[in-house]
Amino acid sequence: MASLAATPKPPYYAVIFTSLRSDADDGYGDMADKMLELAQNQPGFLGVESAREGLGITVSYWQNLEAIANWKHHVEHVAAQKLGREKWYSAFKTRIAKVERDYAFEQ
Amino acid sequence: MASLAATPKPPYYAVIFTSLRSDADDGYGDMADKMLELAQNQPGFLGVESAREGLGITVSYWQNLEAIANWKHHVEHVAAQKLGREKWYSAFKTRIAKVERDYAFEQ
Repeated sequence: MASLAATPKPPYYAVIFTSLRSDADDGYGDMADKMLELAQNQPGFLGVESAREGLGITVSYWQNLEAIANWKHHVEHVAAQKLGREKWYSAFKTRIAKVERDYAFEQ
Repeated sequence: MASLAATPKPPYYAVIFTSLRSDADDGYGDMADKMLELAQNQPGFLGVESAREGLGITVSYWQNLEAIANWKHHVEHVAAQKLGREKWYSAFKTRIAKVERDYAFEQ
């Protein structure tokens, strides 16, 4: 999705998920699409930005920490996370961050 | 650069820079490389992760807000930002966020 997330005025939260894929494909694309759609339907979801170029970066934006915790523990997401560790990722890092300020440019 | 940033224990800061490129090339790659190298030599720089797939996402990590402000106002970086607005980007968004927690996985 090549568009910038239209997030509200700060403060809000960002989940910065960076990952390196394993060689295994095996349903990864379908699961990634499914999780993206599911995330977008969670309470408190504000937007998402994603790109992969060797390294994958997905930043999702949320109203508060409770929304992030709920999404982390969503039953389908938990199952996907398990498969991610078992099959799809060789490494990943998740950072939870509070967005304090933002500024934008558009031509 | 396909590697996860080896950041220290939180708290620290993230600058989430997401962008859409214009059609203009005109020195963009060289400038991006130069700014990356320059950023890495600034006081308080902790790491960077970057990917472009239509949408570009660069997340740089910093010790504190002062380090971010100093980098924002670095004279060569200011000149690059000006060219970015004039030539290279159709839109971008910069978010300043305080990383409160992180967790990692490695196979």
